[in-house]
Amino acid sequence: MLQEIDYPISVQFDFESGTFDPVKVRTDRCVSDLALMFADKKVVQEIINNGDRLVYEIWYHPFETSKSDMALGVTRILPGKVGAEYHMTKGHIHERDDQPEIYFCIQGEGYLLLQTLDGDFRAERWTPGTISHIPPMWAHRVVNTGNKMLIFVASYHLSAGHDYQPIEEKGFKKLVVETDGKVAFIDNPHW
Amino acid sequence: MLQEIDYPISVQFDFESGTFDPVKVRTDRCVSDLALMFADKKVVQEIINNGDRLVYEIWYHPFETSKSDMALGVTRILPGKVGAEYHMTKGHIHERDDQPEIYFCIQGEGYLLLQTLDGDFRAERWTPGTISHIPPMWAHRVVNTGNKMLIFVASYHLSAGHDYQPIEEKGFKKLVVETDGKVAFIDNPHW
Repeated sequence: MLQEIDYPISVQFDFESGTFDPVKVRTDRCVSDLALMFADKKVVQEIINNGDRLVYEIWYHPFETSKSDMALGVTRILPGKVGAEYHMTKGHIHERDDQPEIYFCIQGEGYLLLQTLDGDFRAERWTPGTISHIPPMWAHRVVNTGNKMLIFVASYHLSAGHDYQPIEEKGFKKLVVETDGKVAFIDNPHW
Repeated sequence: MLQEIDYPISVQFDFESGTFDPVKVRTDRCVSDLALMFADKKVVQEIINNGDRLVYEIWYHPFETSKSDMALGVTRILPGKVGAEYHMTKGHIHERDDQPEIYFCIQGEGYLLLQTLDGDFRAERWTPGTISHIPPMWAHRVVNTGNKMLIFVASYHLSAGHDYQPIEEKGFKKLVVETDGKVAFIDNPHW
């Protein structure tokens, strides 16, 4: 017998703004939420002291039914830097080791960083239309290196879970920074 | 130990053409492949006798890893009709009863038809940007009622399986046809 949650749902996504309607949950991530991630702690503290600042938003719709838990997430990363480091997502790895994810870059430009617990590292260049598969067991973070909003759509399962701890502790092997007006990958001193 | 299939993959999607590169598999569906689905069997036979005709293409990339099987599919439905009935996909239901799917309309306009085995029927109106969640246990078909290509991106798991048989036997409850230059839903006489 079908329950109410087992019926089809549609939302309307706007390609320009990267928003959709109706939205179930919206989460804001400010510089203070990424205090452990950005390398320049002095600049982080200054921004927080000056009232903090939005880095990105996640809009999502958990399409939970009585038998499944596929979810839609849209992330909007504002352009900008904290010190020399470009705006980015916190980065996480799935708790379950059999759960992948698909990311679809709609607008903007940047990089998808991927890393295993053993330290295998990859950076996928993103432009509008890049679709990336994040295999299980790879931590992932998106970095906005452009001068406009970076918007991407994610599809995953809620049961995958989000583990932020490995990234909070050591971060990714590379920091993505602006050097002489260009994008550069530099070694993360904590690795 | 990671195998070669456990590494990240990206493809580049083109929003205008609805194609992506690299593509792993491409499948063409012609009128002859939908001979059981279109209602006007006389017109179907005429088209086949005249050399058949493409109705839609599926481009897909099965992102299989040693622990997961998420897949990306892009469907491009050409504008057109077979008799009064608009071009559409064959329609299927997942073999597994716990497997949903997300569809994302990129371009074009039409309807996503959904139906349970008990005959509960829904039609979701699609325009560019509509994202629909197809819950488990709902057969699904997309109909192109516009005058240009309808393009949508799908995300699902290969283990979901595709069962075409319930739709081959009886079809959906409604046919989507052009009547007096307008889109109309009429009862399927086989239901």
